[in-house]
Amino acid sequence: MRLVIIGADAAGMSAASRAKRNDPELDIRILEKTEDVSYSACGMPYNIADPDRLIEDLVVRHAKVFKESQGLDLRTGHRVDIIDSSGKKISGIDRRGNTFSFNYDKLLIATGAVPIRPPLPGFDLSGVMVLKSLDDGRRIKEYLKTQSVTKAVIIGMGYIALEMAESLKSRGIEVSMVKPRLRFIPWMNETMSAHIRKELDSHDVGVHTGVEVERIEEVEGGLRVIAKDAEFDAQIVILAIGVRPASNLVKEVGLELGPSQSISVDRKMRTSDPHIYAAGDCADAYHVVTGQKVWIPLALRANRSGWSAADNITGRESILDGVAGTAVFKVFDLQVARTGLNVEEAKEAGFEPVERMIRASTRAHAHPGSAPMWAQMVADRKTGSLLGAQILSTEGAVHRINAVATALHAKMTLTQFAQLDFAYAPPFSPVWDPLLVAAHQLMKKIS
Amino acid sequence: MRLVIIGADAAGMSAASRAKRNDPELDIRILEKTEDVSYSACGMPYNIADPDRLIEDLVVRHAKVFKESQGLDLRTGHRVDIIDSSGKKISGIDRRGNTFSFNYDKLLIATGAVPIRPPLPGFDLSGVMVLKSLDDGRRIKEYLKTQSVTKAVIIGMGYIALEMAESLKSRGIEVSMVKPRLRFIPWMNETMSAHIRKELDSHDVGVHTGVEVERIEEVEGGLRVIAKDAEFDAQIVILAIGVRPASNLVKEVGLELGPSQSISVDRKMRTSDPHIYAAGDCADAYHVVTGQKVWIPLALRANRSGWSAADNITGRESILDGVAGTAVFKVFDLQVARTGLNVEEAKEAGFEPVERMIRASTRAHAHPGSAPMWAQMVADRKTGSLLGAQILSTEGAVHRINAVATALHAKMTLTQFAQLDFAYAPPFSPVWDPLLVAAHQLMKKIS
Repeated sequence: MRLVIIGADAAGMSAASRAKRNDPELDIRILEKTEDVSYSACGMPYNIADPDRLIEDLVVRHAKVFKESQGLDLRTGHRVDIIDSSGKKISGIDRRGNTFSFNYDKLLIATGAVPIRPPLPGFDLSGVMVLKSLDDGRRIKEYLKTQSVTKAVIIGMGYIALEMAESLKSRGIEVSMVKPRLRFIPWMNETMSAHIRKELDSHDVGVHTGVEVERIEEVEGGLRVIAKDAEFDAQIVILAIGVRPASNLVKEVGLELGPSQSISVDRKMRTSDPHIYAAGDCADAYHVVTGQKVWIPLALRANRSGWSAADNITGRESILDGVAGTAVFKVFDLQVARTGLNVEEAKEAGFEPVERMIRASTRAHAHPGSAPMWAQMVADRKTGSLLGAQILSTEGAVHRINAVATALHAKMTLTQFAQLDFAYAPPFSPVWDPLLVAAHQLMKKIS
Repeated sequence: MRLVIIGADAAGMSAASRAKRNDPELDIRILEKTEDVSYSACGMPYNIADPDRLIEDLVVRHAKVFKESQGLDLRTGHRVDIIDSSGKKISGIDRRGNTFSFNYDKLLIATGAVPIRPPLPGFDLSGVMVLKSLDDGRRIKEYLKTQSVTKAVIIGMGYIALEMAESLKSRGIEVSMVKPRLRFIPWMNETMSAHIRKELDSHDVGVHTGVEVERIEEVEGGLRVIAKDAEFDAQIVILAIGVRPASNLVKEVGLELGPSQSISVDRKMRTSDPHIYAAGDCADAYHVVTGQKVWIPLALRANRSGWSAADNITGRESILDGVAGTAVFKVFDLQVARTGLNVEEAKEAGFEPVERMIRASTRAHAHPGSAPMWAQMVADRKTGSLLGAQILSTEGAVHRINAVATALHAKMTLTQFAQLDFAYAPPFSPVWDPLLVAAHQLMKKIS
């Protein structure tokens, strides 16, 4: 049997390694259009922060290792252009301009996501950068090294935008962030969102919401980012307004699509074609709280779904629960964490959400070094089910969210959550963990 | 209706405040033999570390506040000596030597735990200290202030002993720890336990296992701790070999007892006498993994069970799940966390335990500042149920354990745990959280 995998990043290479381990006799071909495979994309902002680190540090395993040690037939510089699902064949072009074509018995699409680049004037100028592939990171790093960059504009205010703001600031670059919508972090509760904004202010990052960029122009000494009522000069512009699934390839195939034009897969990573699987950022997932399809491109899901696809392809049944939407990030000294649904998402999914945000301390009463922690919980008034949480603090926010994610997978009610035997020691927590306090406070709104 | 509460620390005062809120008309009398109520006992080692902090910083709420703001009839300096359960009456003696006696409709026993002091020669000398009550903390602090203390011996190697080792070291005192058994931390997996021992070594704390102290003598310049084959000179000896439930008071009453002579309570904190409740460190609890009774005196359970007793007494049904045995502590730069059962406990409870310990990194591939993390998971071979975990690292160990505790409450299998949508961002975790890696590795031993 031949398994062809398109894409050799997190999902594709997880799948390839796993499939090879499960069935050493399997004929596996992996086709990757770039030259980079298996690297920590999420580490790029932190790598860019340090001029002395090589971007290559982020490579987890080189193509060579996959080929030589694992015996995988991995072909980089191979771009697949056509999937012929009736003939079970793919074809494309390699780095030398030669065409290639292969038959497959099973096909795994792991093409990932691509950054959104609006077709606006000047958005294709050479100083306007996206950050998705390792090549993007390489390009930004090289640019910062060779150009004299004192000012940057970041378009967008998502995770990557925020991480890049910190990264560029740490290199002494003046940073302005802009976005068209007025709400700073729209999915976040407003108190917490205001604290993040304050954190950016205190590090002299300019945050300009309600600014819709119309075009970017080359000017003397760099670039000018032009909105209706504002202009920003810079030598580099980071375009971080989001990504979309790299699903163009399947449009001709007629595979069923999910949210945001992602490739729809079942709990075994099967698409609507019985011979084609999809995994990673190009595919959708079930949300463990709503049971509905969502498209939330995140690294753990990419790895896990690649693995799962390989298991199912090689005859080891693997059924994935789905995602809880757990996400964490760092903004200077702040840790931000979320999982599950916020109030708006809960309403959209048909729940009757109630929420409560509390402010607690990260450490025990009178313990030195204690910092404030904000924790918000959302539950369903009708069933008492826990729906989601957000946590913000300078310490202890990130790993605490995992307990909420676990509770969401287990479909716990707020009352059950409030009973959990959580860790306590004075340097790490108050006796009543902030999450337990939030749960108890929210219970009052339900009963 | 009159509710009498014996003991005014975590469980007693949680119960009193809660009962008053639930039913402002309730006649509540709280009798406390010491003068201290509602303080952070667990904070004492950290407070003792800093000569400039007052021990009174640890008081969460003074007796005065309870009396004046909450209108509670709290009587400190009142020691209860007799419970007459047939006459529903208690009696005792107050700080002035006057006897008192009250009738009750409901009685809550919240007498806590008392440190174990073996009746060995010299264990009652004035430089030999235990650390349980605020008075104990006050005494140690005063002693360190007024005496010239350069050397300390700690008898015992539990949480308090380890925290006191760090505390005294930070004050420049030479510390030797001794215990009779050979295994350093017997409940911990040996690799992790060896790392903690190394951490103590690297901070010049002497760790002497297999040393059974026979007596303590006064010598020129302080105390001599004498074992069969060893002697240690010191000016202070901390006796931290454990605590036992303060349940002497109920022996005459004939209440049913649980493990370690704790007072046996049901899920509503009711003892075997229908008019008597017990909560906090004097009472037992159900273990959420085994369903069996355990005695694990910890602060969260004390607060929670006091609260629950108050609810049940005032007619609001509250049924507690029990404890998972979650415990965390700090040893110099190490964070240590556990929850659920270890291998030995799992065997005793009738499971067929399999375990796996993995070594991972606290941060993503190539992220600066990454440190090693050890995570051990225990599961039942027959059912695949998760039974427990232990985590050790310099960062991120403590709050991660809460996710395992949540999974134990939810009675998850290892396979379900391995599916959890955990947080990932390069500064905080690898893509596959160490707990997920441990779960996957352990699954191989089961399937």
